[in-house]
Amino acid sequence: MSTTDKYAFGMIGLGVMGRSLLLNMADHGFAVAGHDKDAGKVSSLNDEAGERKAKGFGDVKEFIQSLTTPRAIMMLVPAGKPVDSVIAELSPLLDKGDILIDGGNSLFTDTNRRVEELEAVGLHFFGMGVSGGEEGARKGPSMMPGGDKDAYAVMKPIFEAIAAKVDGVPCVTYIGPGASGHFVKMVHNGIEYGIMQLLAETYEVMKKGLGLDNDAMGKVFADWSEGRAQSFLLDITKDIFKYKAPGTEHLLIDDIKDEARAKGTGKWTSQSAMDLQAPIPTVDTAVAMRDLSKYKALRTKAAGIYSGAQAIDANADEFVEALEQAFYFTMIISYAQGMHMLANASVEYKYDLKLDEIAKIWRGGCIIRSKFLENIYGAYGKNPALEHLLLDADVAALVEAALPGIRKVLSAAVSAGIAMPAYAASLSYFDAFRSERMPSNLIQAQRDYFGAHTYELIGKEGTFHTQWVPKS
Amino acid sequence: MSTTDKYAFGMIGLGVMGRSLLLNMADHGFAVAGHDKDAGKVSSLNDEAGERKAKGFGDVKEFIQSLTTPRAIMMLVPAGKPVDSVIAELSPLLDKGDILIDGGNSLFTDTNRRVEELEAVGLHFFGMGVSGGEEGARKGPSMMPGGDKDAYAVMKPIFEAIAAKVDGVPCVTYIGPGASGHFVKMVHNGIEYGIMQLLAETYEVMKKGLGLDNDAMGKVFADWSEGRAQSFLLDITKDIFKYKAPGTEHLLIDDIKDEARAKGTGKWTSQSAMDLQAPIPTVDTAVAMRDLSKYKALRTKAAGIYSGAQAIDANADEFVEALEQAFYFTMIISYAQGMHMLANASVEYKYDLKLDEIAKIWRGGCIIRSKFLENIYGAYGKNPALEHLLLDADVAALVEAALPGIRKVLSAAVSAGIAMPAYAASLSYFDAFRSERMPSNLIQAQRDYFGAHTYELIGKEGTFHTQWVPKS
Repeated sequence: MSTTDKYAFGMIGLGVMGRSLLLNMADHGFAVAGHDKDAGKVSSLNDEAGERKAKGFGDVKEFIQSLTTPRAIMMLVPAGKPVDSVIAELSPLLDKGDILIDGGNSLFTDTNRRVEELEAVGLHFFGMGVSGGEEGARKGPSMMPGGDKDAYAVMKPIFEAIAAKVDGVPCVTYIGPGASGHFVKMVHNGIEYGIMQLLAETYEVMKKGLGLDNDAMGKVFADWSEGRAQSFLLDITKDIFKYKAPGTEHLLIDDIKDEARAKGTGKWTSQSAMDLQAPIPTVDTAVAMRDLSKYKALRTKAAGIYSGAQAIDANADEFVEALEQAFYFTMIISYAQGMHMLANASVEYKYDLKLDEIAKIWRGGCIIRSKFLENIYGAYGKNPALEHLLLDADVAALVEAALPGIRKVLSAAVSAGIAMPAYAASLSYFDAFRSERMPSNLIQAQRDYFGAHTYELIGKEGTFHTQWVPKS
Repeated sequence: MSTTDKYAFGMIGLGVMGRSLLLNMADHGFAVAGHDKDAGKVSSLNDEAGERKAKGFGDVKEFIQSLTTPRAIMMLVPAGKPVDSVIAELSPLLDKGDILIDGGNSLFTDTNRRVEELEAVGLHFFGMGVSGGEEGARKGPSMMPGGDKDAYAVMKPIFEAIAAKVDGVPCVTYIGPGASGHFVKMVHNGIEYGIMQLLAETYEVMKKGLGLDNDAMGKVFADWSEGRAQSFLLDITKDIFKYKAPGTEHLLIDDIKDEARAKGTGKWTSQSAMDLQAPIPTVDTAVAMRDLSKYKALRTKAAGIYSGAQAIDANADEFVEALEQAFYFTMIISYAQGMHMLANASVEYKYDLKLDEIAKIWRGGCIIRSKFLENIYGAYGKNPALEHLLLDADVAALVEAALPGIRKVLSAAVSAGIAMPAYAASLSYFDAFRSERMPSNLIQAQRDYFGAHTYELIGKEGTFHTQWVPKS
């Protein structure tokens, strides 16, 4: 095989995502190779490749020999042990300077470990977040690669070619060292959890509070997706409200169980945020509500004991107008919490993240793409060192203008007994965030009272302890 | 030294907690020994011991030789590496069958590892939660020991003697195997975080919403601590609202920084709850708000940009009456979430927890002791297999009666812009919990739309996938 016959990029794991990414690369003129233990998936790639320079290999050694060096090989296998298995199988077959890319949703601490292990044997390991689902992979995903900066040059032309484009700008950029790519993708997914929960609660309040039918609710989502709140998630929600259960006249969504499943990236985001002491309560709430949804039997029993939600006494059109403000507000808060978490991680883990670049590559291809991401990109573009999105003057004007809507909607839901936990978490986060004085001095005093944990005083250095009641 | 001169219990770490526990044991007639590397602390114990049979040793070997066998030795050293260091130093000096008790707030997964490591060399390792602070340790703590059931017999008479008593019943019981003692103590602390945050928000709404001064707020807390909402945390809050900054006429609490610190047990509770998929959003919110409180500089900037909270337009007395209902409601929810988490852990980690026993020993000595714990004990006493505290008929009646109060208070706070995040999380948890149908079907549909994650259908087995829009 001559050098010219060699392939510029290799993929391990030829499921729908791996195959789609390879075909996307081949569409852009790159010669690419794939490997899978499943002979059927190898054949599928070869069948779909057609005239394109994309070839599937059943034999892993043949696959590796077919690649130009330094080799760039992406894995798309399930997170956890499968990633370690592939690494163990592959690394003895590779040469120093070769690059292994984990394109799955691995936990960033696993990626840290793998970066170190492979660095020790002279290999570059990249953790790369890939968002956009099957369609994104095939037509243009958003990609978040993290690892060795110099090694990134090998993949850069390929990734920039296949990425989604917004105004001609590719939705991929070098994120930072170590596990930063997987970390940023994890936070992306956390924001995704938040916005999905907010859309679910929007559905809830329109259905139980206003008594709107599916047609009317679908129309609201469709209207919003034409406006400032436009997002991919809103777009697909609008579509879902059009899709009839096959052979029936009612919507499929009515037949789907109200038990949300999860693969864990939202949970990881919340758990990591707590480690960083970067509060993201909207995401935490989304995780808690997915969990609560699974207790169907308990909920059914509770529904038999307690009185239920009541209708909201309001003009539906006016309420929906307030609801759009409320949704827009809470969506902004979701992004703001996520960006703040990234700012914290950047310092704590020395990722040196460029928040403007991250906002830029989230504008297209990924699940949380939205019109508002242009505003985020604008805010961090103006001031890459912006400490918190809510401190940007343009964002602040949007937030302030939306406050009457969120206050109206949430107070009505609270009164009527309609659960809007992520809306509530977003508003109370905001109300606490813009409090110069929080009531947390009481918590300091309580901790010192019962545990002698000491407290701090305004305007004084050091910590202090008080015997709050005379010793008896 | 004759056998009769030997000591029945040993303590390593003679800080205030260790010394207090030892003196408590000596008060009850047990001969006890202590060891600390700090000679000053050894002397302190010997000085304070007086006529009691409590002796401090500077030499660890002498200390160990002084104990009756099988030895029962408690460590009270900071969680983390210090615990491992003490174990490494001690275990070669011990005999098979000896018992090591970690009385600190160790992470339960660390305790799991230590139980296994010491079991391998024939030693029993106990993780024991101890709550009550210095005063509790000296006069009667609540204790949550977990480990080998047979080995517990060695310490049982000592622990039952020194524990707090409620109606003559000691606040200690064998919790379960492995790390169950530390796990239960962790959840105790999570509930503690929740209730402390709720009290802080109660302070916030009275101060910013009603404009009450410290005297008036102190009177409210004092009134409540005479009623059904009585708790240790409310009692100390009442005291805090009496304590003047030394040499001044104003309260010390006004001088304390509004930045709450934490040692991590609340965070661990939330992170573990997410692993168990047992939602405890009130605790999650308390953790998030302690974290948010630390961003003082950011909050001050935000306060300069955004309009602030407004006064609540209500009759203060009537509002405070509703607030008592609201606080009582949210306190119940905090306990209910914690008990539900324990029920989940009991199954997942095979702890076989007795929730009635746990409620029983939390009634006295510990930080979350309260009048309402009698109700919890009653509910689980009637039905130890109760799936969720909110399904108990007596509790349900209290909850239902408090709903008007929480709805009134929270909708007013939402409208006025006063942050009550833990109140909001508690109510929305309840409103979702008593929903037979949640809106999570939409989340299932969205996940299937963008990620082909499949969904489940009502009344049908299996998972399904839909091509929601025609492939373009």
